[in-house]
Amino acid sequence: MYSQDMARKAAENLRRVREGKPLVHNITNYVVMNYTANALLSCGASPVMAHAAEEVEEMVSLAGALVLNIGTLSLPWIEAMLRAGKRANGLHVPIILDPVGAGATRLRTDSAKRLIKSLSIAVIRGNASEILSLAEEKSGPGTKGVDSVHTVDQVQERAILLARQLGTTLAITGSVDLITDGERICRVMNGHVMMSRVTGTGCTATAIIGAFLAVCPDALEAAATGLSYFGLAGEKAAADALGPGSFQIALLDALFMIKEEELRQGAKIEL
Amino acid sequence: MYSQDMARKAAENLRRVREGKPLVHNITNYVVMNYTANALLSCGASPVMAHAAEEVEEMVSLAGALVLNIGTLSLPWIEAMLRAGKRANGLHVPIILDPVGAGATRLRTDSAKRLIKSLSIAVIRGNASEILSLAEEKSGPGTKGVDSVHTVDQVQERAILLARQLGTTLAITGSVDLITDGERICRVMNGHVMMSRVTGTGCTATAIIGAFLAVCPDALEAAATGLSYFGLAGEKAAADALGPGSFQIALLDALFMIKEEELRQGAKIEL
Amino acid sequence: MYSQDMARKAAENLRRVREGKPLVHNITNYVVMNYTANALLSCGASPVMAHAAEEVEEMVSLAGALVLNIGTLSLPWIEAMLRAGKRANGLHVPIILDPVGAGATRLRTDSAKRLIKSLSIAVIRGNASEILSLAEEKSGPGTKGVDSVHTVDQVQERAILLARQLGTTLAITGSVDLITDGERICRVMNGHVMMSRVTGTGCTATAIIGAFLAVCPDALEAAATGLSYFGLAGEKAAADALGPGSFQIALLDALFMIKEEELRQGAKIEL
Repeated sequence: MYSQDMARKAAENLRRVREGKPLVHNITNYVVMNYTANALLSCGASPVMAHAAEEVEEMVSLAGALVLNIGTLSLPWIEAMLRAGKRANGLHVPIILDPVGAGATRLRTDSAKRLIKSLSIAVIRGNASEILSLAEEKSGPGTKGVDSVHTVDQVQERAILLARQLGTTLAITGSVDLITDGERICRVMNGHVMMSRVTGTGCTATAIIGAFLAVCPDALEAAATGLSYFGLAGEKAAADALGPGSFQIALLDALFMIKEEELRQGAKIEL
Repeated sequence: MYSQDMARKAAENLRRVREGKPLVHNITNYVVMNYTANALLSCGASPVMAHAAEEVEEMVSLAGALVLNIGTLSLPWIEAMLRAGKRANGLHVPIILDPVGAGATRLRTDSAKRLIKSLSIAVIRGNASEILSLAEEKSGPGTKGVDSVHTVDQVQERAILLARQLGTTLAITGSVDLITDGERICRVMNGHVMMSRVTGTGCTATAIIGAFLAVCPDALEAAATGLSYFGLAGEKAAADALGPGSFQIALLDALFMIKEEELRQGAKIEL
Repeated sequence: MYSQDMARKAAENLRRVREGKPLVHNITNYVVMNYTANALLSCGASPVMAHAAEEVEEMVSLAGALVLNIGTLSLPWIEAMLRAGKRANGLHVPIILDPVGAGATRLRTDSAKRLIKSLSIAVIRGNASEILSLAEEKSGPGTKGVDSVHTVDQVQERAILLARQLGTTLAITGSVDLITDGERICRVMNGHVMMSRVTGTGCTATAIIGAFLAVCPDALEAAATGLSYFGLAGEKAAADALGPGSFQIALLDALFMIKEEELRQGAKIEL
């Protein structure tokens, strides 16, 4: 049975984003910058992309949340993420990390771990392979480029332990999304398989959770409700789309058009 | 009453862009590169993006206009903008500057001012907060990330003075667009509120003015007619769009499909 | 008469891409990263963008093909391309190069030549001006920004000699695509003029050939069949599109929807 309480909270968080229009500061990858900015605007949030070391501390001090995404990382960008992240921590601006491709190359795995060790991070969102690569023990090969080769079912137990070890909330997305803070576990059943045929849907999920974190102090709730909203938009978009092109456009439209009451009724969150 | 003369000039400038296919050299931000390139192609112009210090002088010498946009600035890009701009000035290639986020961080405000002091710039296009942050006197807080918190009405007088002080044409966009060279004032009433729900519409307006500058030596006329054309495309796009996704696509279609006669009839420019 | 054998191979290669989902590693330009990633996903391939010198060797070792594109080049990116390319050569991962804007600036021409001299490249895809600028002799002005001012007919003879000289397969795209390895010549008649009104369609053609190279060891065949598939998608997309915006979306849909049998019947390849 889906949680009516979480569905109510999803609708309430969406209302808060649309009314509060939180500024979401993104230090993210080149591939998805345009799409995630548009997705945040479609949600009602106010995106800003800024990566220069000289300005990230100032920019993040204006923001309601900070999104760090290593999808096309290089060393200067990691330094900027650290600077922005430390200021965010000092100001209690919540941080969400997307460790894109962690497990695929040492640079990505090490950079993600470095960010996690240096910063207090509210939520880490990735696919199963990316998240499991963040554990200290070697988990063996599991990432092919930036795509996961695990299922959520295989990883629930390891995720709970890892969330405790890292002291954060993990949001592992896939056909079913698993969210855990080490104590509580949520599963989100919303979504559509077409979301895996558009680049950056994972990154967009991360950005949307960022917007929800800006209005909701409970990280598990922000992640689960944000993913439910994004997944419901995917379901609506798929109903009208011919292929991945029309789907990605319909997805932006759906984020904009979904009514709060519609989300309350359509959210499929298990607690 | 809208100016029939300016409406006629709008149609004429659009015809010149489509026939001349001017090369527009953009040193712009990562978020909007793809969208502004597509918008320029939809207009009939020929976009090129090039930012390496080693090639910007050579590239700009082939161009009909230079677009400088600080949306995701970093210091090497500002240096490239200065090099390209100095060469453009030497060759009388008109420059348009988009001071994205000026007022939000010191790096942005200072970089925009540095470009203005070092170069002769034909048009500066921004929202009211961004433009007012370019004045020497402190104007107090007015920018939230990259979004403006002023209205055009509040700023007309200050804009006239600032245009004189900076020796340029200012194009302040919002629900009504205000263009002034310190002597003349234009207001453009075209546009649609949905344009604020797509990332980079301001940057795209800047790029389109760039294309118009390449075919029209009067900077005020180029800015007002370019904004009128872009705004009319927004009106057409909104008529068919369901949300921000379908709107951004319909906007590219509309830029392509608008007939010159249609612009002559639909332009809403007050002089 | 179109080759039925090549049409059959086109369908077969498409099937292999969809079944094998090859990882295609792209070091490409900022403008098209999102669109080419989406096009590769629509084809059935698995794209990854990674440019940091610290990780490109590791990433390319996971890949089925490497795409190098100099559209927004700078010196550090060229260095990363060389590192990735050398590792790719060592592992027999095929490389395709897109010399965007070669001939327009010395940096682009020299960088393209440097990549060609340093690496063994399976296919070079560009417009006629770009490809001809790679010859040792000066070919005079022929590139305006990143757009070609030659026709394929003018260049066939020079292309054959150049392919022999460079020891590679050249794919020169335009209203008719010309592909030659110095011995064989293919012409591909698929495509639609609207493809020239969307930014990055050339870069996307390159990426799709990359996916085909990952499943087809014959470079001429991979290039001709990949271009035929992409061109057919353009024809289908144009049938429904209103302008460049809806066309670019319909193109992604068409890449996804084209059946292998449809490609076998619709491929227009002369050998």
